[in-house]
Amino acid sequence: MNAKELRAKIAKGEFVKPTAGYCEGFVQANMFVIPKKYAKSFEEFTKKNSKAMPLLEVVEDGYKTKVLADNANLLNELPLYNIIENGKVTKQVQSIEEYYDNDLVFFLIGCSFTFESSLLKAGIGLRHVEQNVNVSMYSTNIKLNPVGIWRGDMVVSMRPIAKERVADACVVTSHYPNMHGTPIQVGYPEMIGIKDINNPEYGDAVEIKKDEIPLFWPCGVTPQNALLDVKLPFAITHAPGHMFVSDRRDEEYYQ
Amino acid sequence: MNAKELRAKIAKGEFVKPTAGYCEGFVQANMFVIPKKYAKSFEEFTKKNSKAMPLLEVVEDGYKTKVLADNANLLNELPLYNIIENGKVTKQVQSIEEYYDNDLVFFLIGCSFTFESSLLKAGIGLRHVEQNVNVSMYSTNIKLNPVGIWRGDMVVSMRPIAKERVADACVVTSHYPNMHGTPIQVGYPEMIGIKDINNPEYGDAVEIKKDEIPLFWPCGVTPQNALLDVKLPFAITHAPGHMFVSDRRDEEYYQ
Repeated sequence: MNAKELRAKIAKGEFVKPTAGYCEGFVQANMFVIPKKYAKSFEEFTKKNSKAMPLLEVVEDGYKTKVLADNANLLNELPLYNIIENGKVTKQVQSIEEYYDNDLVFFLIGCSFTFESSLLKAGIGLRHVEQNVNVSMYSTNIKLNPVGIWRGDMVVSMRPIAKERVADACVVTSHYPNMHGTPIQVGYPEMIGIKDINNPEYGDAVEIKKDEIPLFWPCGVTPQNALLDVKLPFAITHAPGHMFVSDRRDEEYYQ
Repeated sequence: MNAKELRAKIAKGEFVKPTAGYCEGFVQANMFVIPKKYAKSFEEFTKKNSKAMPLLEVVEDGYKTKVLADNANLLNELPLYNIIENGKVTKQVQSIEEYYDNDLVFFLIGCSFTFESSLLKAGIGLRHVEQNVNVSMYSTNIKLNPVGIWRGDMVVSMRPIAKERVADACVVTSHYPNMHGTPIQVGYPEMIGIKDINNPEYGDAVEIKKDEIPLFWPCGVTPQNALLDVKLPFAITHAPGHMFVSDRRDEEYYQ
């Protein structure tokens, strides 16, 4: 299934689950939607924190993509959306058509799912893909560089990696700086304020086997988590793990 | 000081210490010297274990280098040599002229000191260089692929790396596959059979600070350690940390 086909299924409501492991080789992206008056400072915020929030595309006029796909509809081509009011998720929906007005700005941000095909090709297994669950994501004590009203803590995704492939996983992912690049932490969750590895704040818990080491990558859920601090009256995001699957190929972002 | 100048000092007996941190940008190498009848199977052994023993040059006729330097004298241009009999170091000497006969074959093997300039340039500190001591080296439970009489356990060198630079250290060193490349282990010494991080089998112990993680690279002391198992009647090696400093530049081995 290519990305266009998956998005068509999603638009028809036939696919409502995390997108990791689907459309191998197609770039996936986080989405963050806010009213125009907050958009400029948010864009600056992504630039000051580009490892957590690598900006791939901004859609200001309307809701159709230009860069990541030709005319994809951001209102119903993601599997699941969070409606966030005053920092709290008040609803999860499969379409945001009823919330749209032309004051909204759409930010599309790089996602670590993009480099997962490269990890798999290198023979590095991915537990959440094997088990067909959502990747584990955690809030950390890593402070973002604040800009205007914007501040907060970095969210990370975790993948357990076989002990002898840890360095390889760092090298493979280093080639995707626009998809978070290298891990931000290797092996020691407590060093970044993660108290219970079995209780991720977002996504599902996965087993870490005896001969595996947990690696942590910055995650595009970071701006969503920032809303807990910033408490905008209204915002829309993708539901964690339920990404925008684009028509761009991984190799276009390989560096 | 360039490599030629350092080797001249060494030949005069004016420099008898570990070479890490000297002659920045010049490739350093391990040395392993054995009688001709063991040489062919040893060469095969290095090829089957090239991450631990990346072969840079073999000198069969005489004792002068051709590849790593033009006519360097391997008998007195390393700071310190181990004389090994039946697997035991029986002597440390500053020249091996009196042990030389034309039945000996010299193997020069890549050394992780080579990529240290690149780590420093990337802003990644090196404790053993700061403290002017020898790097910490440990015997592990990682079994080498045996060839003929040759077998044994891998030796690793350890560098404590600031927690947020661990992935970068993996990436930087990945560009030097002939100098051991990426770490073989990241963060968990017990996973490779290291019982006491404060008691390295070779070199000096260094402090690992609270916000640092120990990274382990394969080490060219590995064949020397293999002699504990193989027990050749006679062999000569560099003394751990006291390397052959060549005229080749790091960038010639950058991939």
